[in-house]
Amino acid sequence: MSKIRETIDLIAPPDAVSMAEAQRIQDSLTKPRGSLGKLEELSVRLAGIYRTRAPTIGRRMVFTMAADHGVTEEGVSAYPSEVTAQMVLNFAKGGAAINVLARASGAEVRVVDMGVKSDVEWPEPVISMKIAHGTKNMARGPAMSEDEARRGVEAGIELAFGACDDGVNALAIGDMGIGNTTSASAITSLITGRTAAEVTGRGTGIDDDVLNAKIRVVERAISVNSPDPSDGMDVLVKVGGLEIAGMAGVVLGASARGVPVFLDGFVSGTAGLIASTLCPESRSYMIASHISVEPGHRFLLDHIQLIPLLDLGMRLGEGTGAVLAFGMADAACRILNEMATFEGAGVARSVRSKQEEQVK
Amino acid sequence: MSKIRETIDLIAPPDAVSMAEAQRIQDSLTKPRGSLGKLEELSVRLAGIYRTRAPTIGRRMVFTMAADHGVTEEGVSAYPSEVTAQMVLNFAKGGAAINVLARASGAEVRVVDMGVKSDVEWPEPVISMKIAHGTKNMARGPAMSEDEARRGVEAGIELAFGACDDGVNALAIGDMGIGNTTSASAITSLITGRTAAEVTGRGTGIDDDVLNAKIRVVERAISVNSPDPSDGMDVLVKVGGLEIAGMAGVVLGASARGVPVFLDGFVSGTAGLIASTLCPESRSYMIASHISVEPGHRFLLDHIQLIPLLDLGMRLGEGTGAVLAFGMADAACRILNEMATFEGAGVARSVRSKQEEQVK
Repeated sequence: MSKIRETIDLIAPPDAVSMAEAQRIQDSLTKPRGSLGKLEELSVRLAGIYRTRAPTIGRRMVFTMAADHGVTEEGVSAYPSEVTAQMVLNFAKGGAAINVLARASGAEVRVVDMGVKSDVEWPEPVISMKIAHGTKNMARGPAMSEDEARRGVEAGIELAFGACDDGVNALAIGDMGIGNTTSASAITSLITGRTAAEVTGRGTGIDDDVLNAKIRVVERAISVNSPDPSDGMDVLVKVGGLEIAGMAGVVLGASARGVPVFLDGFVSGTAGLIASTLCPESRSYMIASHISVEPGHRFLLDHIQLIPLLDLGMRLGEGTGAVLAFGMADAACRILNEMATFEGAGVARSVRSKQEEQVK
Repeated sequence: MSKIRETIDLIAPPDAVSMAEAQRIQDSLTKPRGSLGKLEELSVRLAGIYRTRAPTIGRRMVFTMAADHGVTEEGVSAYPSEVTAQMVLNFAKGGAAINVLARASGAEVRVVDMGVKSDVEWPEPVISMKIAHGTKNMARGPAMSEDEARRGVEAGIELAFGACDDGVNALAIGDMGIGNTTSASAITSLITGRTAAEVTGRGTGIDDDVLNAKIRVVERAISVNSPDPSDGMDVLVKVGGLEIAGMAGVVLGASARGVPVFLDGFVSGTAGLIASTLCPESRSYMIASHISVEPGHRFLLDHIQLIPLLDLGMRLGEGTGAVLAFGMADAACRILNEMATFEGAGVARSVRSKQEEQVK
C-alpha cells in the first residue's frame, strides 16, 4: 500500500481563497447572480482545484481502461467476452464513440489494457498494464488477489502522474469490459448500502430474465465474499475489476497532482466511489460529467455528493460522457475569465443586489 | 399576413428516408443500440432536417433579440428597464455571456434591436429592426398593434432568410428584455392552458412578494385582453413582446429554409410556442437546447412535444443555452459520420441483435 498511501498523503483540499475570489467575480459579471447555474458552480470548483481565480483547461486526456470479468461465465451480459479485446482494437483504430467524441472535445485518448483476457498483440497506441487475464468469477470467490488490486491502482497512479508530467491538466476516465456493470453493481450496493435490485441495471441491454439472474449474481458475489464496505481495497479485491482498479488509481493520481478528473458513467463512477473510501478529499477533484441510465449511478453520485452536469440518457461508458463534459468545463472557465462586469460595462445592477451591497 | 403565410407554405416535413437511413446507421455502429441516448435521437432528427444521412452543422449563428416591455411599470422585474439598452451595448462590445459562450461554440452573434425603449445610437454590430419603443403595458390593454406584431415576425423571417442566403446552416434564438418573463408567462399560460401561478417564475431574481404581484399581473393581462389561445398572432398582439415576435419569425424562416433552429430558454421557447400555433410542422425544425429553471418552460416544451438536451440550472436567456447545444449537435453528427460499424471493425454483435437480425 505504500505507493498508494504516499499518493493519498499528497491530496490537499482545494484552495478556498481562489474559490471565494471566483465566486466574487461570478457575482460581479453582467448577468443575474447564479443565472448560469451549474456552469457557475463548476467554474468555482475549478478555481479551487487549479488554485487560481482564472482557471483554464488546457491539454486534456481520457484514459479508457479495458479488462475482462470472470463473472461473465454466469451469463450476465448481452455480449460475449471477446468483445472487450475487439473494442480495444476499435479504440486503437479510432473508430469507437470515445475516439469520435474525444476528437470533438479536443481530448487525447489513451487506451489501456488493464486485464484483457486474451493475449492480443496490441497495435502501438494501446498501453499494456495487464495485471491478469481478466478477473476470476466473483460469484464463486474473490475477483482478484490483494496484490493484483494494489498493482492495478498503482498502474493508474503512474499513468496519471505521467500525463501530468507531460503537461496534461485535465483527466477523464472511461471503461471497457464486458461484464463490468455486474461488478459495478456489487461495488455500489456494498458502499452505498442499497440493495442489489436497486442498483443493478440492464448494462449493454439484457432482458428481464437476464436482469433477474444478474441481480442474484450480484447478491451471491456479495454474500460469498462479504467484503468490508468501508475498505475500498477490500471491495476491489472481492468484487472489483482490473479496469476499475486502474481508474481508481487515476482518480487518486489526478487528485494528488491537483488536476480535475472527469468521471464518466456508472462503472467509472465506482472507481470514484472506491477512491473516496480510500481518501474522502479526492472527491474535491472529481467532476461528475453525466448521469447514466444505469439505476445504480444516481445512488453512487448521491453517496459521494456529486451533482452530474449532463443527463443525455447515455449508457455506453468508454469515457464518452466525460469528454462531452470537457466542453462544459471550457465554457464555465471562459465565463469566469472573459465576461464583463456590471461596473466595467456600465450596466445597472438589480435592486436586490444593491440592497445586498448596502448591507455589506 | 401574406409574407408570413408564404413562409409557412414553404415549411415541409423533414425527410423520412434520411431519418430511416440515419437510424439504420446508428444501429450498425460499434455500441449497444441507443446507448448514446439523446445524441442518437438528435442525429436522426438532424438527418431529417438536412435531408441527408450525413448531417453536419457548419456556419452557425444566434440572433439575440432585444425589446422593452411596458408591463415593467407594474414592478414585475428586479432590474430597471434601462438595463435592456445597456445590455445591448454589452452584447455589441462582446462582454456578455452570449458573446463568451458563442465564441466557445464557434457561433456568430447577431444582436437585434426589435423594440428597445430608448433611442440609443447603436454601434455597428447591432442590427436595428426597431418596430416600436417597447410594448405597451399588457396589464391595461394590448401590448402591440396587429401591424407591429406582423412586422416583428416578418423582420425575423427576413433575418433568418438573409443568414441562410449567406451560408449559415444552423440558427439559434435568444432574448434580452427586462420584463419579458412576464410576457412569456402570459403566453405560456394561454397556449398550454396552465394557470398563471403554475407558469410564472422569478425571472432575473424577484422575491416572494414581487412574484405574487407578477402572477396577478399575468392574470390581469389575460383577463383584460382575452386573446384567442389558438391564434399565435392574437396572443402576440395582446400579451407578447417585440423580441418574441422577431424570434417567432426566425423560427418560421429557419423552418422554411430547412435549417434547425435552437431554442434557448423560457422566453425564446414562447417564440417556438407561437410559431407552433401558426405552423405545427415548424416544431420539426426546433431543437430544445436546455430546460430553464423558470417553471413555465417545462409545460411549454411538453406542449410542443420537445425534450430538452441540457439541464444546467440556467435562467439567463440571450441564447446562452442554445449555443451550448450547438456543441452537442456537433457531437451527435460526428457520431453518425465517423464511428466504425460492427462489421467494419470486426466486433461481435450482441446475442439479442443477432436474434433480431434473424427475425428480419
